[in-house]
Amino acid sequence: MLSAIEARATILSNIAPLGSITVELGHALHSGLAHDIVARVDVPAFDNAQMDGYAVRSADVQAAPATLRLSGEIAAGSVAPQPLRPHETMRIMTGAKIPNGCDAVIQQEWAEAKGEDAVTFTRSVSPGHNIRKAGADIPAGTTVLSRGRRLRPQEIGVMASLGEEFVSVYRRPSVAILPTGNEVTALGKNLPPGKVRNSNAYTLGALVRDLGCDAVQLDIAPDNTEELGARMLKGLREDILVTTGGVSVGKYDLVKDALESLGVEIVFWKVNIKPGMPLLFGRYGDKPVFALPGNPVSTMVTFLQFVKPAIEKMLGLEVEERSSRKAKLVHEYAKKDGKRHYLRGILAHENGEAVVRTTGPQVSNVMTSLALANCLIIIPEDRELVRAGEEVEIELL
Amino acid sequence: MLSAIEARATILSNIAPLGSITVELGHALHSGLAHDIVARVDVPAFDNAQMDGYAVRSADVQAAPATLRLSGEIAAGSVAPQPLRPHETMRIMTGAKIPNGCDAVIQQEWAEAKGEDAVTFTRSVSPGHNIRKAGADIPAGTTVLSRGRRLRPQEIGVMASLGEEFVSVYRRPSVAILPTGNEVTALGKNLPPGKVRNSNAYTLGALVRDLGCDAVQLDIAPDNTEELGARMLKGLREDILVTTGGVSVGKYDLVKDALESLGVEIVFWKVNIKPGMPLLFGRYGDKPVFALPGNPVSTMVTFLQFVKPAIEKMLGLEVEERSSRKAKLVHEYAKKDGKRHYLRGILAHENGEAVVRTTGPQVSNVMTSLALANCLIIIPEDRELVRAGEEVEIELL
Repeated sequence: MLSAIEARATILSNIAPLGSITVELGHALHSGLAHDIVARVDVPAFDNAQMDGYAVRSADVQAAPATLRLSGEIAAGSVAPQPLRPHETMRIMTGAKIPNGCDAVIQQEWAEAKGEDAVTFTRSVSPGHNIRKAGADIPAGTTVLSRGRRLRPQEIGVMASLGEEFVSVYRRPSVAILPTGNEVTALGKNLPPGKVRNSNAYTLGALVRDLGCDAVQLDIAPDNTEELGARMLKGLREDILVTTGGVSVGKYDLVKDALESLGVEIVFWKVNIKPGMPLLFGRYGDKPVFALPGNPVSTMVTFLQFVKPAIEKMLGLEVEERSSRKAKLVHEYAKKDGKRHYLRGILAHENGEAVVRTTGPQVSNVMTSLALANCLIIIPEDRELVRAGEEVEIELL
Repeated sequence: MLSAIEARATILSNIAPLGSITVELGHALHSGLAHDIVARVDVPAFDNAQMDGYAVRSADVQAAPATLRLSGEIAAGSVAPQPLRPHETMRIMTGAKIPNGCDAVIQQEWAEAKGEDAVTFTRSVSPGHNIRKAGADIPAGTTVLSRGRRLRPQEIGVMASLGEEFVSVYRRPSVAILPTGNEVTALGKNLPPGKVRNSNAYTLGALVRDLGCDAVQLDIAPDNTEELGARMLKGLREDILVTTGGVSVGKYDLVKDALESLGVEIVFWKVNIKPGMPLLFGRYGDKPVFALPGNPVSTMVTFLQFVKPAIEKMLGLEVEERSSRKAKLVHEYAKKDGKRHYLRGILAHENGEAVVRTTGPQVSNVMTSLALANCLIIIPEDRELVRAGEEVEIELL
């Protein structure tokens, strides 16, 4: 059986970023950049005052105290009407462009007004004092952000400071969600005996929207190959199809047959994990298809481990490394099935140390365990016993 | 001067959650619950089979091997047409409701078909074997989620499993964003000498949307009390007004005067922090008003430290504890100004240990430092020297 790591690599090797589109910068949040951003201008664009003070030629105050003639004032956003001539000074505000001739800005604390037209400086300064040079933050020509970069608020701000009003980003995939099973009943309908609520479609819809993508909710499909196929075809109009339930080995597990009858290529079925073992991954042309198991916890775990990285790759993002974080497991954990286990965990920081414990029973239909959890604890295939106090890999939820 | 902790407490004490509204469950992601969710039903709603197998009366297989008459089949979502009588068994699928009379489900591995009408069981089982009891995940009457809970995908899933089609959540505040300053120029316009781009409005808009709230962008206000006032009045139609720039002590810093002339009560001005010292917080009736400094880094840091918790409280969420996480600072850091410093940091995990370094120069207008950063490093007021290897508080970005 495929390992989790092999399954993930197989999925990613079958997926490419979607095409790029141009959007207004304000709409690019959390998209993946589709091209490098090279600064066309210096930021700041001009030498400017780092604080409120006086623009001077530093040579003029070499032998401080020195008195200079006050020849003007420069507010932020305005420019001096004339250059700064020898033995002159100008009042200057934070961020204002320094006048030609000026090579230093002296803070107010070192200056005393002499009437209306002159200022005495009590200290000498070196050239460049209190001046922010043009390009000090970003020199023109610098590659500021690279293709594949996820645009957080600060990246949006950097692009705005460069004047990039429009930006090319990867298109976001639309994700069709298809719950299956005779037992699954829509919210708002009476719940007959033996039936359960359609909770997976809600969990998945929220997970998809968390990634900034559109979730297209399909009607619940009954356990009937023809009706399943019809619903799947509708879902395959979107960029990704995700089904839940009906993918195990039971008599009523028809999802695999239905996918095959539509011409979906089954890339793999079953992964050596717990929960989530019956996971299926296929392709319909370029479109990825995921059949997730129907137990609520299996559904969410397999989405996070396998569908999320696929979506990230389609978004053109560098796919996040899984499980780079570690914490000390508070209690012992034993298993013998040779599977990779994903436990719902509660991460806390105690005495400056990251510690983690499970939420309690790890039965795969206990959805409340996920509501208690703030992380997944990952126990690799070959570990049979983790002792209390040992470090384990975790992934934040 | 107010400390950061006092400033934050003052802000929160001046703010209350907005009113609650009822929304369809699928639209409640990341909202704050406005009431407790008490389970009206058991989840699961009925005793059911934990795996595919055979429904039996455990007494019938006490003296295994035992052969029972096969009297039917129960698929998930269906119910047995008749009870399970003594010496009978029924095929049952995972999740299906067990028939009356049944008290155990025997897995297929321990069963052998005897023709079409009988099954021999090779092992005895105890009552309850392979049965998930009604209410095992959530017993009816349990308070599953409490008021103020942030609704992540898994909470949405739990509510769906309870059949909660609609949910009462706190209304999301709309946030007016008002950039100020003669030097600030809109994107898409020519950038005259001495002017800078309107980057803060983009950063703030993205930060606001990250919290799930609407950002209402106002036109840039020039340094002119009348025009500032007119723009502010427009902004005060929204739930929160956030301005940037013009809040320091310079001749052209008119934001405070303009707010006062509109009748905004100034609750505090200036906080003992770096960057971001000139931060102002006020109230216009019940509406909070934040005047953030205009340096891009100050703007983002003060938003995260002071505006974000305010929005979280208005959203009815338990406000996140600041800085519960720690990491080892790789290098030394010294300061003497008695202020709380927020440094842009890069957190990494090396040899299983959380380590952090600054992004480099911490000048407050270097916006690229925030694009490099994945956390803020917090150095308290009274620390003058942090040695390399010492632990520091961090907040993830």
